[in-house]
Parts: sequence; structure tokens; C-alpha cells
Amino acid sequence: MSDHVYKKIELVGSSKDSIEAAIENAIKSAGSSLRNLDWFEVIDTRGHITDGKVSHYQVELKVGFRLDN
Amino acid sequence: MSDHVYKKIELVGSSKDSIEAAIENAIKSAGSSLRNLDWFEVIDTRGHITDGKVSHYQVELKVGFRLDN
Amino acid sequence: MSDHVYKKIELVGSSKDSIEAAIENAIKSAGSSLRNLDWFEVIDTRGHITDGKVSHYQVELKVGFRLDN
Amino acid sequence: MSDHVYKKIELVGSSKDSIEAAIENAIKSAGSSLRNLDWFEVIDTRGHITDGKVSHYQVELKVGFRLDN
Amino acid sequence: MSDHVYKKIELVGSSKDSIEAAIENAIKSAGSSLRNLDWFEVIDTRGHITDGKVSHYQVELKVGFRLDN
Amino acid sequence: MSDHVYKKIELVGSSKDSIEAAIENAIKSAGSSLRNLDWFEVIDTRGHITDGKVSHYQVELKVGFRLDN
Amino acid sequence: MSDHVYKKIELVGSSKDSIEAAIENAIKSAGSSLRNLDWFEVIDTRGHITDGKVSHYQVELKVGFRLDN
Amino acid sequence: MSDHVYKKIELVGSSKDSIEAAIENAIKSAGSSLRNLDWFEVIDTRGHITDGKVSHYQVELKVGFRLDN
Amino acid sequence: MSDHVYKKIELVGSSKDSIEAAIENAIKSAGSSLRNLDWFEVIDTRGHITDGKVSHYQVELKVGFRLDN
Amino acid sequence: MSDHVYKKIELVGSSKDSIEAAIENAIKSAGSSLRNLDWFEVIDTRGHITDGKVSHYQVELKVGFRLDN
Amino acid sequence: MSDHVYKKIELVGSSKDSIEAAIENAIKSAGSSLRNLDWFEVIDTRGHITDGKVSHYQVELKVGFRLDN
Amino acid sequence: MSDHVYKKIELVGSSKDSIEAAIENAIKSAGSSLRNLDWFEVIDTRGHITDGKVSHYQVELKVGFRLDN
Repeated sequence: MSDHVYKKIELVGSSKDSIEAAIENAIKSAGSSLRNLDWFEVIDTRGHITDGKVSHYQVELKVGFRLDN
Repeated sequence: MSDHVYKKIELVGSSKDSIEAAIENAIKSAGSSLRNLDWFEVIDTRGHITDGKVSHYQVELKVGFRLDN
Repeated sequence: MSDHVYKKIELVGSSKDSIEAAIENAIKSAGSSLRNLDWFEVIDTRGHITDGKVSHYQVELKVGFRLDN
Repeated sequence: MSDHVYKKIELVGSSKDSIEAAIENAIKSAGSSLRNLDWFEVIDTRGHITDGKVSHYQVELKVGFRLDN
Repeated sequence: MSDHVYKKIELVGSSKDSIEAAIENAIKSAGSSLRNLDWFEVIDTRGHITDGKVSHYQVELKVGFRLDN
Repeated sequence: MSDHVYKKIELVGSSKDSIEAAIENAIKSAGSSLRNLDWFEVIDTRGHITDGKVSHYQVELKVGFRLDN
Repeated sequence: MSDHVYKKIELVGSSKDSIEAAIENAIKSAGSSLRNLDWFEVIDTRGHITDGKVSHYQVELKVGFRLDN
Repeated sequence: MSDHVYKKIELVGSSKDSIEAAIENAIKSAGSSLRNLDWFEVIDTRGHITDGKVSHYQVELKVGFRLDN
Repeated sequence: MSDHVYKKIELVGSSKDSIEAAIENAIKSAGSSLRNLDWFEVIDTRGHITDGKVSHYQVELKVGFRLDN
Repeated sequence: MSDHVYKKIELVGSSKDSIEAAIENAIKSAGSSLRNLDWFEVIDTRGHITDGKVSHYQVELKVGFRLDN
Repeated sequence: MSDHVYKKIELVGSSKDSIEAAIENAIKSAGSSLRNLDWFEVIDTRGHITDGKVSHYQVELKVGFRLDN
Repeated sequence: MSDHVYKKIELVGSSKDSIEAAIENAIKSAGSSLRNLDWFEVIDTRGHITDGKVSHYQVELKVGFRLDN
């Protein structure tokens, strides 16, 4: 594992069901174009309200992946 | 949407079941007296422990709503 | 409740299922050696990704407990 | 000025023209229902983009006012 | 205590005597119009200087109270 | 709007005229290669000084855009 | 003093009288089981309110002590 | 540019017109007694309100300048 | 008050008695060489421990003063 | 230098030798695919421990580079 | 690796030679009483000055280790 | 040591060799005009890149020194 370099990108996933589903959606989207996804960090959790209820959870996260050398 | 003004208030919701339920409880409470609730932001997640188990999740959140001009 | 003193320790719990389960795991572990656990505060939420999916949620939390005088 | 108490509320003002105009709009709105507005603090500056241009500046600010004793 | 909702407001109390007196003044003011005050958190401590001496301590605090359901 | 995923990038725009112009320059640059720009957040405002005057405002901002699914 | 190692722990002291007394209580409690206490840092100041008055100050602090080599 | 040392000072400039003018005023004041001003960083933006309008913008900034060796 | 410029310096005052006394000591020291001291902001509160008791409170504060134009 | 736009990306470099080497490794990696690298900022320093010794330093940094107009 | 729980402690290591040596000293000290040390995070870097030179680097770090279940 | 007052100033040191050398350069510069330098705190670590390599480390630090009473 010596001297690997990782890149982190910042994504916002959303889901009308749960915080975990919003995270999973963002990671699935990232995985469609990036290989070697390794970890994520939740930066912010927010959402929209419609008719007095949560209509969407939005989770901002950083996703780290290993760069190919 | 030009030149709307929004106000944000700070609430703490609680639930013995989940983080999402604590958020929903706070928003339902706010909605009983405020119109035009628009979004929320999670500020802090904490809770109480009873007999070595989580007895309540407490989620502190800011709720934004549009002021009537 | 006057003049009690509390100590806070920092734990990282993990779970492949949910953020709440990671919190519960950390608290269960702390409860096996410490009495008087009183509250927790979530400090950080992160996790690992395997094959483009969340393999583990990791929740860093502080746990407060009352010191026996 | 001894022993006055102030309250702070959190507002988001918007304007399509400038950051200053967004601040002024929020304060004008607050002034229509609150007396004794005394100072403001900018908390966050953001905005929306339409067709590759800023369509609105949004400035989140705290506004402090003196409570009548 | 299950599922209570709390609101937090932000106040600035002042006193020429001490930090504690500034806190007490802000809470006394809040208590004249709000029931169920439950806790406070100090956010910022500052003050004014006149003739090279502290003329007033100003303490910014958040005050939490339970909403009646 | 359900389940959209957004990406955020970090840019620094500069202008010798104003903070707003520095923001606009960064967004115009981003718009030349990215579609669906949606919002921006100001992270930092700084600048250079030449001969005792502001020669350039530099505004660091995050720009969010919707990923095509 | 070369190459000493210190450990920091996190305590919450409380007192119905003052912030300083809450700090002193926490340190006295730590001193009953730990030697070589060296310094403290205040992390957070909060408290409970009963009948519209401060019933307890709670001060969260870190306490550093030298480890015996 | 090797091994230069810079000092940073903290100033608050004010202007009744705009944020940029408050920055310029602070830098002009610093330039009257300091040479080699090089850059500034905005730390905080606030202001006073008179009769429901912004009477002054106040911008807190750090100003960096090269020390003569 | 239009267009005044203020400078802020950072001091650490200490006292074996109280937090307020540490603040006063720092301000008294600043006042011996600087005119027009206007306000202070507490940045950090810490202290030393001797024989299991607080031997000194140390308060780090910023002190603002008006520059003569 | 007027009106240039810069982009910042976030990298994690690692090295078993030193913090500086971890920084250099990340920058060398970025330089293989990006032109006009201009500056870096260290965001976080951490590492792994194997057999009670540092096995790798990991330095998270932001790297800024000028966009070609 | 499923459902492991980790604890983090806070240490301050010092060295008259370098930042890396201060880190190594803290970890070596922790390793003498704790098994399963896994990672560290640098929280703060400071030091003492004697006769106008750095006499000691002090690095505050968090050290994480796996709890035995 | 009772009731001493300290002042803190903010410096940026640079070096093409290492983080420690950048710190030492800033302290050496401060020591040429100030007596009683006592401690430093690293605030930020950054640097410039030339031809894909670190050309200079820049370390921002606060330096504390005792004021003569």
C-alpha cells in the first residue's frame, strides 16, 4: 500500500426514503464512471420539505478513490 | 423567486426509533404553526443512553421557511 | 444532580446495515466495561466502499458517563 | 446601555443584483415586523445559476435587535 | 420524555459585573415571555472597554425550551 | 427531482473590480465545459494588494451541478 | 522536559455557583485518580435552567497530564 | 522569493457604501504606515443597522506584508 | 463613525483568581501602550494545574482599538 | 494575472518516510495529468500504525491549478 | 472487519528534532500499554521557543485502536 | 508566573526544504526584533508548486511572547 495517491470528490446524493439511501445513490452514481472507490465521508445532511413533510434527504459526501499510477 | 426572504429557526427533534424519525418529528411540530416550510439542515446528532442502549436519538436541525411579503 | 463530574470518551462503531446500528454497536461495546453511560454525540459519519457499494458505515461518537465520586 | 438583552434571528435575503442588495432585502423584511434592529452578521453567501450565469445571490445573515424590557 | 421537540433561540446578555451575571440577565429576559426554558449554551463571550477597563461583558448564548405539543 | 446526484467542484475566480465579478468569472469559466450548473457557495474571499490598493479580488467558491444519469 | 508524552482526557464539571467552580470540580475529580495533571482547556460552557434561573453551570474541559515513562 | 517572512495583522474597515469600499478603506489605512502590503483575506462581514437600513458595512480582514530582512 | 478603521491584537491574560480577572489583566496591559481600546472577544480559556488545583486561568482574547486617521 | 480562474482538487498522498514526502508524492501524481499546478494547502495529516510504529504518513491536500481560458 | 469498535485517545508527543519524531514518540508511548494501535490523526502542531529557536516541537494527535470484543 | 500578559502575532515563514525549516525561519525573523518569545502554534501549511514540484513550503504560525510589565 506504500505511496498510493487518492483523489477525493464531493457529491450530493438524494433520496426520499432515508439518509443511507441518499448515500448509496451518490456512491452508485460515482461508481458508474470511476474505479477503485475506497471510502466516503458525510459532510452535510439536509433536505427539502413539501407540505410539512420531508420530501427528500440530501447528503453531501466526499468520496475517495485510488488513482492508477 | 426573485428577492424572497427566508427565516431559519433551530429545533431539536427526538425519537426512540431513528435519526430520520427525529427529523420528521421536529418538522411536523414546526409545520403546525408555520407555513411555507422549505428546507432543513442537520446541525447535530446526539442522544441519551439508558441501560447501555440508545433510548432516544436527538437531532438538532435548522428549518428554513419563506416569509410572506 | 449537583456537582457531578462526567467523562467523555471517543469511539468508532461500525455496521454494514445502518448509521443507527453503528452507533448502537459502539455503545454496546462501551457498556460492557463502563457503568453510568448517559449520552452520546455523533462526531463524524463515514464508511468503506467495496465493489461500488457501502460495505460498512463507520460512526465516530463521543460517549459521556458519570464518574462515581 | 447596561444590562440590555438582544435577540438574534437568522434570515436569508436574495437579490439578482448584488450581495449588498441581498443583505438590504433581508433587513428591510425584518424591519417590517421588528423594532430596534441593531446589527447584522453575514453567515454564508451563495446563489443560484441559470444558463451559466448567477441568477440570484443569497446571503444568510444573523440580525440582532434589542429586546424591550 | 419521548418525542419532545425543543426550540433554540439566540440571545446576547450583558452585565458590567461578570460573565455569569450576563448569562443570568439573558435567561431572565427570555423567561419573561417563554415557558419551559430547559438549557443554555454559551456561544461567544465578548465585551466593551471604556477608559481601559471592561465596561460590559456580553455573552451570546443559545437557550433551549420545550415546545408544547 | 427524486434521487438526482450532484457534483461539487471548487474554483477560484478573480476580478479587479468587485467580489461579484470574481464570482461571475469563475462561473462563466465552469459553464464553458460543464452543463447543468445549479448553485454556488462562497468559501473564501481574499485578494492581492499592489501599491497599497486592491489589485484583484479572489473568490473561492464551490459550484454544484447535476450529473446526467 | 525533552520528549515527554502527555495524555488529554475530556471531562464535564458542574456547579450551581460559577463557571470557575465547575472547572475546579472537574479537576478535583480527575486529580483523585490521576497524577501529574498539568493544564486544562475549556471546550464548552453550558448549563441547565430551572424555574427561569441557571440551576447548574456545566463546563466541558480537556485536562492534560504527563505520562510516566 | 526564497525564505521570505510575512506578518499578518487584523483590521476592521467600514464603509456606508459597500463591502468592497470597507475593504479598500482598511487597506488604505494600513498602507499609510506599512510597506510591502501583499494580500488580504476577509474574515468576517457585518454591519450596523439604523432606522431599518444598513448604515455601515464592517469587514474584518487580515492583511499580509513582507518583513524586511 | 463613518469609515473608521480598527485594529485587533491578540493577548493572553492570566490570573490565579478568575476568568474575569485574567481578562482585566490583559486589557490593563494593552491600555498602558494603546489608546482607544474599544472591545474584546474571548478566543480561548485555559489554565495550569498545580497539586490538583487550578493555579492560573489563562484567557486568550482579541482586543480591538480605533486607529487614528 | 487579471481574471484568471483556478480549480482546486483534493488529494491524499502517502509516504512511509515523512510528511513532506507524502506531499511530494501527491503533487507528482497530479502533475502527470494536469498542467499549471500552482499551489497546495495541507488539509489533514494522519497515518497508519503497524506494530506500534508509523507505517505510513497520509497527507490530505488541496492542489490549485490555473484553467486554460 | 464487520462491526469492530475502535477507541480514540488524545496524546501530545514532543521532540526537539522534528514533527515526525514528536509523532513517533507519542505512538511509542501509547504502544507500551495498548495493543492494536491502528491509525493516528494530527490535531495540532505547536512548540516552545528558547533563545529565539525552536526548543521542542509538540504534536497533539488522536490515536485509534481496536477494542477486543 | 502570576498575572503575566502575553501577545501573539501571526507570521508566515517559508523554506524550500521542509516544514520545520519554514517554522524556524519565521521564528528567527521574529526574534530579531522581539524579546521573550515563548511558544508557537502552526495555523496553516501550504506552498507553491513549480514545474510539478514543491518550490516552497509556507507555514503560517502564531508566535507568543511575554510583555514586559
